[in-house]
Amino acid sequence: MQIAVLLYDDFTALDAIGPYELLGRLPDSETVFVAKEAGPVRGDQRSLALVADRTLAEVPRPDIVLVPGGPGSEAAMRDEAILDWLRTADATSTWTASVCTGSLVLAGAGLLAGRRATSHWITLGELAEFGAEPTGERVVFDGKYVTAAGVSSGIDMALHLLGRIGGDALAQSVQLLTEYDPQPPYDAGSPEKAPAEIVARLRKELTAPLPPS
Amino acid sequence: MQIAVLLYDDFTALDAIGPYELLGRLPDSETVFVAKEAGPVRGDQRSLALVADRTLAEVPRPDIVLVPGGPGSEAAMRDEAILDWLRTADATSTWTASVCTGSLVLAGAGLLAGRRATSHWITLGELAEFGAEPTGERVVFDGKYVTAAGVSSGIDMALHLLGRIGGDALAQSVQLLTEYDPQPPYDAGSPEKAPAEIVARLRKELTAPLPPS
Repeated sequence: MQIAVLLYDDFTALDAIGPYELLGRLPDSETVFVAKEAGPVRGDQRSLALVADRTLAEVPRPDIVLVPGGPGSEAAMRDEAILDWLRTADATSTWTASVCTGSLVLAGAGLLAGRRATSHWITLGELAEFGAEPTGERVVFDGKYVTAAGVSSGIDMALHLLGRIGGDALAQSVQLLTEYDPQPPYDAGSPEKAPAEIVARLRKELTAPLPPS
Repeated sequence: MQIAVLLYDDFTALDAIGPYELLGRLPDSETVFVAKEAGPVRGDQRSLALVADRTLAEVPRPDIVLVPGGPGSEAAMRDEAILDWLRTADATSTWTASVCTGSLVLAGAGLLAGRRATSHWITLGELAEFGAEPTGERVVFDGKYVTAAGVSSGIDMALHLLGRIGGDALAQSVQLLTEYDPQPPYDAGSPEKAPAEIVARLRKELTAPLPPS
């Protein structure tokens, strides 16, 4: 089983690494980080680059496609080379997955039309512009399409996927290995739970990606 | 405020990226990934390399030192270049932090003697060999020393640190931005919660890092 993690300029690191850390431990699997060009790809904080070991063309038929989000998704969702690769990879994939605004890139490739899907809470509404049905859930399965909400939600998505692919015992084993027993000191991880003034300020500060022209 | 994230061969990616994703959003901060040599450093799954932009020598006085864990910690905790850098950086740091077996590297540098600390559950006992006092907590503060349990716990640690450094509203804002509202589909993230047979199998499979000779 081959897992391809797409990288593009200004992606969000945890979107990719959260699910990678867990899914990469699937027995008999190979994970490949891919980008338009092989080499370092810098994330949205600019202080970190991950290395894409292969070009898109070198990985045409992954079993699992994973698309992270980030501010760069705005450009990625209009990048024909990326969209073409996604359509090709999706044609034979077992699972096509995204985290955060990665779902907008999948939507940009036309893969989420008519499907239930999610995204970062700030961009959830944009999914509808592509004919998807946005839901407020943290992880959404619609057939082989799996979308997760903002940034950290990819970890939960990976556990769901591990369970479906390898069974509950495998997923629990990876959860124990990665000691995923969350104990956040605050309960502000969703717009429903965070203080209203913090939600309002973030809403104002975050420039949501524009819909395609 | 300068945050230095140490990389070494065979580190665990999420140990570094979990806290990076959140801490890197501290206002007026700069994050630098450092290693003995600048360039790509490959993690424990071998399918991913992160780029260290600077050498250890180039970052002698970070305000926050962050040491991830991973199978490579066994070599790192005996690597005098790494241990020397940690002692130097720690002499002027505001916070010295670790995730997972990163605490064993700090302990190897002599920084945790007499202090309460934690580590991945499988290696918790080894801390005592360095004169530290292991605790089963997920995030442990002892003065400026902050240690987190296995892999994913660095996210919780980062929220604690953000709260202490920038206040509750900042931490909550970053929690909302990263949508850290965990909803794992299983409750197997600690040896107390996971099914006993899974704990037993992992205990057998995982080769704990050896104590220093």
